Amino acid sequence: MAKIIAVNAGSSSFKFQLFEMPGETEIAKGLVERIGMDDGVFSITVGSERISRNQNFETHEEAVDLMLEELVEHGAVADINEIVGSGHRVVHGGESFDDSVLITDEVVEKIENLSELAPLHNPANLMGIRAFMEHLPDVPHVAVFDTAFHQTMPESSYLYSLPYDYYKEYGIRKYGFHGTSHKYVTQRASEMLGRPLKELKLISCHLGNGASIAAVKGGESIDTSMGFTPLAGVTMGTRSGNLDPALIPFIMEKTGKTATEVLNVLNKESGLLGVSGFSSDLRDIEEEARKGNQRAELALDVFGERIHKYMGSYATRMGGLDAIIFTAGVGENSDIIREKVLKGLEFMGVYFDKSLNDVRGKEKFINYPYSPVKILIIPTNEELMIARDVMRISGM
Amino acid sequence: MAKIIAVNAGSSSFKFQLFEMPGETEIAKGLVERIGMDDGVFSITVGSERISRNQNFETHEEAVDLMLEELVEHGAVADINEIVGSGHRVVHGGESFDDSVLITDEVVEKIENLSELAPLHNPANLMGIRAFMEHLPDVPHVAVFDTAFHQTMPESSYLYSLPYDYYKEYGIRKYGFHGTSHKYVTQRASEMLGRPLKELKLISCHLGNGASIAAVKGGESIDTSMGFTPLAGVTMGTRSGNLDPALIPFIMEKTGKTATEVLNVLNKESGLLGVSGFSSDLRDIEEEARKGNQRAELALDVFGERIHKYMGSYATRMGGLDAIIFTAGVGENSDIIREKVLKGLEFMGVYFDKSLNDVRGKEKFINYPYSPVKILIIPTNEELMIARDVMRISGM
Repeated sequence: MAKIIAVNAGSSSFKFQLFEMPGETEIAKGLVERIGMDDGVFSITVGSERISRNQNFETHEEAVDLMLEELVEHGAVADINEIVGSGHRVVHGGESFDDSVLITDEVVEKIENLSELAPLHNPANLMGIRAFMEHLPDVPHVAVFDTAFHQTMPESSYLYSLPYDYYKEYGIRKYGFHGTSHKYVTQRASEMLGRPLKELKLISCHLGNGASIAAVKGGESIDTSMGFTPLAGVTMGTRSGNLDPALIPFIMEKTGKTATEVLNVLNKESGLLGVSGFSSDLRDIEEEARKGNQRAELALDVFGERIHKYMGSYATRMGGLDAIIFTAGVGENSDIIREKVLKGLEFMGVYFDKSLNDVRGKEKFINYPYSPVKILIIPTNEELMIARDVMRISGM
Repeated sequence: MAKIIAVNAGSSSFKFQLFEMPGETEIAKGLVERIGMDDGVFSITVGSERISRNQNFETHEEAVDLMLEELVEHGAVADINEIVGSGHRVVHGGESFDDSVLITDEVVEKIENLSELAPLHNPANLMGIRAFMEHLPDVPHVAVFDTAFHQTMPESSYLYSLPYDYYKEYGIRKYGFHGTSHKYVTQRASEMLGRPLKELKLISCHLGNGASIAAVKGGESIDTSMGFTPLAGVTMGTRSGNLDPALIPFIMEKTGKTATEVLNVLNKESGLLGVSGFSSDLRDIEEEARKGNQRAELALDVFGERIHKYMGSYATRMGGLDAIIFTAGVGENSDIIREKVLKGLEFMGVYFDKSLNDVRGKEKFINYPYSPVKILIIPTNEELMIARDVMRISGM
């Protein structure tokens, strides 16, 4: 048996989850927040015990140091050497990585070089990687990229209709994100459907605060809604998704903002927040809509409709459809959004059973039994997918 | 019988077509180019006679003056007073116009006020309108808007996921264009299908140098691919269509261009031209692709795929589909693009008969007889639609 830790490091935080593999039992998980600030928080859950306390950390290394101590102290591991591998979420693998990879100096350098494409994320991910390499120098460390799963997209899907040199010189193309989640739920869907991935045409809807849709044919992503960055695609909590590109200069002229400031509005003040005017949290919006708030209803309609259109669009890309999957916070929990997304799809063989839709965060089929296209709710588990990749890539 | 002239005025040109209504016979048509420049061209066709000559015009009025003289001279009309109405294409009607309208001073003022949304087009359209009002002061003049047909879109379709104030304060929303063409071909499709528009779900593909797709349900546009401007939507001759909006600041940074310069690249150096690297004209690209040019093949794939996805997307929006319509230069003439767009749609009842696809610019069904969804090629006729609207709006 092998204990594997999955890590998601941000610029001032990291999340971790410890699994016993290959049984896939979660042993512990936790979160370190506000690293480098003077109001740090550390929390860890081992079994039924949950501890949370204020504690400050100068660096990711300090935080990793404490986390490892606490894992021992609370009996998650008898000794830190029981941890035989770590897996790290890395946001951007560009065109360099089409799968998870054992981290070497060369890999670290490549991730660093890709920082230009993900300036907020890749450097933070590397801080986590370096801290773990320092503390656990003798075990394999594996990088798991958000973009890797989508590297199977054909050129006609990933290329923008821009001067071709922009692709060659600046790497401008669609990369797609949430790949680890799309991969996990499509693999799980194959198990639930009792059919090999190779023969399945699946639409995966990862709907959280960020949201993306993927068309997965024969286990390979052939198209996805996010683009060069995670701003593209459908409406999100605070992100606009796709827009007429001519709007950016127009908004700049109207508001006197710079391009970067407009981009900030598109990333942080748009989406559900922009349309509703009061919240980026779908739960708040659903509650207000129930009370008759029209802007809240409009936000739900806009969000639902943008996702809805991808159902036919991606079925078209694949020449048919076997199942639709809902995952992540909104996908797993919002019956209202699922209903909007699944409305009127009978023409393509999707028979949605509303009476099964009142469910939150559980694996479940919500189609009529006779529906040729199945509809599945599958809670995502990116951490487990990372732990699996550590096993697979390191040959354990 | 009534002779009606349909006019499409650009900033330095205008096209005209004279019809005998209600029989809809084309009597004459012509083109004035490079008004205000020193290499003007005038051409007119009456029956089988075509005249073209170099002639310079200071203003639109001068050009209209000559055109009216020539119509008399070549026997298209015995007297200019035989022309009992004129219809004018106006690009942007904003939210002010949801149908064609009799031009009054108030209407002129509104069109002027909408120039901000179409700075290159509305002022040019007004030059044409003013010239005709001057020369034919006693007949009705009707404005026919590219945007009007799409004013039936629901708010959830036309609203972007931006701060709501941007809509209220700056009019930022999806307007859609090519409305006159989409309206003409969907009306014609209803006749060809022998079914009332009210019960039809149609996808109209207007594919020319500019290209847009519309979902037309019960005769009303409920969604369309162009947006706030005609830059949005699918790949076009030189336009990029939809992009990750984050690319604009990225391209600005990489190339040192201003936002306006980047917008210019998106409008004029992108699309088929950008991807192929050598032409915006689909005929050139098809020819090169036949010779094995890979970038030409890629450009065809990108263009075809972007339109292809709208088939399922808009069928989804309408909850089903009765027919797909192809119109405009590419839609009427390119069997290659039609084949790419229609590929693999059997799952939604579209059975395309390739053996019927070798056709150019003629009304024709290209589906198998048993196909639940019909596929129609319909040459568009925006000028005739304009002439019809002059009759309808002026009560003739």
